[in-house]
Amino acid sequence: MPALITITTDFGLRDPFVGIMKGVILAINPEAKLVDLTHEVESFDVLEGALTLAQSYGYFPHGTIHLVVVDPGVGSERRSVLLSTPDAVFVGPDNGIFSLIYEREPAFEVRQILAEQYFRRPVSQTFQGRDIFAPVAAWLSRGTAAAHFGPIIGDYVRVAAPRPQKSGDGRLEGSVLRVDKFGNVVTNFRPGDLPPRFRLLVRKRAITHLVTSYSAGEPGEIFAIVGSAGFVEISAREASAAGILGAHKGDPVRLGAPKTAVF
Amino acid sequence: MPALITITTDFGLRDPFVGIMKGVILAINPEAKLVDLTHEVESFDVLEGALTLAQSYGYFPHGTIHLVVVDPGVGSERRSVLLSTPDAVFVGPDNGIFSLIYEREPAFEVRQILAEQYFRRPVSQTFQGRDIFAPVAAWLSRGTAAAHFGPIIGDYVRVAAPRPQKSGDGRLEGSVLRVDKFGNVVTNFRPGDLPPRFRLLVRKRAITHLVTSYSAGEPGEIFAIVGSAGFVEISAREASAAGILGAHKGDPVRLGAPKTAVF
Amino acid sequence: MPALITITTDFGLRDPFVGIMKGVILAINPEAKLVDLTHEVESFDVLEGALTLAQSYGYFPHGTIHLVVVDPGVGSERRSVLLSTPDAVFVGPDNGIFSLIYEREPAFEVRQILAEQYFRRPVSQTFQGRDIFAPVAAWLSRGTAAAHFGPIIGDYVRVAAPRPQKSGDGRLEGSVLRVDKFGNVVTNFRPGDLPPRFRLLVRKRAITHLVTSYSAGEPGEIFAIVGSAGFVEISAREASAAGILGAHKGDPVRLGAPKTAVF
Repeated sequence: MPALITITTDFGLRDPFVGIMKGVILAINPEAKLVDLTHEVESFDVLEGALTLAQSYGYFPHGTIHLVVVDPGVGSERRSVLLSTPDAVFVGPDNGIFSLIYEREPAFEVRQILAEQYFRRPVSQTFQGRDIFAPVAAWLSRGTAAAHFGPIIGDYVRVAAPRPQKSGDGRLEGSVLRVDKFGNVVTNFRPGDLPPRFRLLVRKRAITHLVTSYSAGEPGEIFAIVGSAGFVEISAREASAAGILGAHKGDPVRLGAPKTAVF
Repeated sequence: MPALITITTDFGLRDPFVGIMKGVILAINPEAKLVDLTHEVESFDVLEGALTLAQSYGYFPHGTIHLVVVDPGVGSERRSVLLSTPDAVFVGPDNGIFSLIYEREPAFEVRQILAEQYFRRPVSQTFQGRDIFAPVAAWLSRGTAAAHFGPIIGDYVRVAAPRPQKSGDGRLEGSVLRVDKFGNVVTNFRPGDLPPRFRLLVRKRAITHLVTSYSAGEPGEIFAIVGSAGFVEISAREASAAGILGAHKGDPVRLGAPKTAVF
Repeated sequence: MPALITITTDFGLRDPFVGIMKGVILAINPEAKLVDLTHEVESFDVLEGALTLAQSYGYFPHGTIHLVVVDPGVGSERRSVLLSTPDAVFVGPDNGIFSLIYEREPAFEVRQILAEQYFRRPVSQTFQGRDIFAPVAAWLSRGTAAAHFGPIIGDYVRVAAPRPQKSGDGRLEGSVLRVDKFGNVVTNFRPGDLPPRFRLLVRKRAITHLVTSYSAGEPGEIFAIVGSAGFVEISAREASAAGILGAHKGDPVRLGAPKTAVF
């Protein structure tokens, strides 16, 4: 069974940066199998990278190595880390990119990557994906144990994943985490946040209908649905909800009280 | 010889949807070889997906499995199908995406995919590519016979591939199927539709010259050429014919009579 | 150890052209391992393709085959070539795409590809990547010796990689080679071109500070740095230098005298 390495970056696909990292990996382990998660994370957006990874890693086979480079602090003193869970290993900068995994996984170990004998030398100050993270992932895929790369640390960086907040009037204030290719508006509400009857307010529009499939919505209707990442999404059937609403990443989403029912 | 699976979607490359499908496949068959055809089919455009697939599948080795997810009806009652030809297997929604293959292949079998024991459970209403199509393709790649997935059906969906139509004055009226990255304007005319002397009218411009290579055209000239998909394309040498003409997908293309020759 | 083939084109990722080339390769050598360098080279931009390749090939393992199709002359009389160095083989059009490799490599052999028995027949005039370059790369990856594809030639095409030029007043005049995804402005200056104290003028702005890491720059500062390709780049910390400067590919970059120091 060949070792599997996924790669997630904000490098885009126009420059050969991702291809170069693959060359470095395959020069160390020619048998490694490489899968791209995405290279279109918004530049330097650690939270978006964290969401992408959290949404994806559970679908990969036992033993998969996840290499992540969204790294605004490249060249600074930020540390490089290796995160081991019983099922997977993650390699990347210590900037919070693994926060949602720290939050979800019951057992894990974080190590600071210090073992320079595994790096490409000299280490570039501007492309550590090539000189540190890719070779470490490649050596891991050849069976080098995590413990060889550095000591366990406890003060790794966590960034708070934004959760809906209680506002003064007791309502929950959430936000748009991202808009996907189909115009689905991913909010930071979880299904459990929504009472049986609700009003989600986005860009002055109220969404009150939670459906279980896209095609259950009426044409033209904007509805809520639980997306594949486990968040409440605002969607439309065969149309871009984001386009119709004019919604963008970061927009507020308010969970209002439903209109009083009159019996 | 490793099993080969191609993947064609309208998911784009920004979200990790395609990567997640690959994780699901490799968790079932770690030896599968995966090739992307494209993930930039226009959202929900079944005809464009069908053209992409029809243009491509003939170049792949015997036994290739083609996984296609362009699926405006996800979550509705539309069926999932598995199409077997002597050379290949295709997995996707029963929405017409395989119409051009039904048209071309002399012998094939279509089965409705019903065998839920091969699905990821629970099946998401919004991401059946992950929960139905990817696992079915993976099990096929491990050698599970098509017959295990469901019964043969005869009422699978075909969509009419648009063909040029005779207009009232006896002319052929075609259209622009797509514009490719180089600005080549792919029409729905086949080479056999063109008489030795012809006038193709696109955006009020007449094209009368059919060349056999891009470089045979004069710089600045707009000419017709038979593209690699077997359709007549309108092209320019080292320039975007679409840009020069202002042509877009869906524009009419008329095959007019050549100007009367005077001897 | 599986044979490794990299692929670099200007085909983009929307059309299935790259996928089709992979199908052709895998039909000849099902064991080949394929890595994309980029398919977003600007259409017909041979220099950009040459830079991409030169920046990347050194990171791949011994024996890698590099397939490159940036080919404005497709269908013309331009030749097809195969370039062998002690470490790698390159396959592509004879249009200068390998110029930077000719310049750097101490020993190599260039052959004209003439052996039609390795081509897909008939050869398309518009898609020789599929019919000539992909099958030749595939046969090379199966071990067919370079000598089988055609005779050694000495008059292969070189294009001058643009180097900074001395202007009338003794200053060096360079230019912007490209702008990458992060807004880094890649110039054609090499580190050795810069004296210890310098003024690089881009879009009327003077850059005088050469830093060794992105994070060494002050927030908001625009500075020079040696990028991973070995060229001097103009960059900003966590910001797009190109966006701030309004700099684009082709813009002039002037190496001016530093202001006279007053002691």
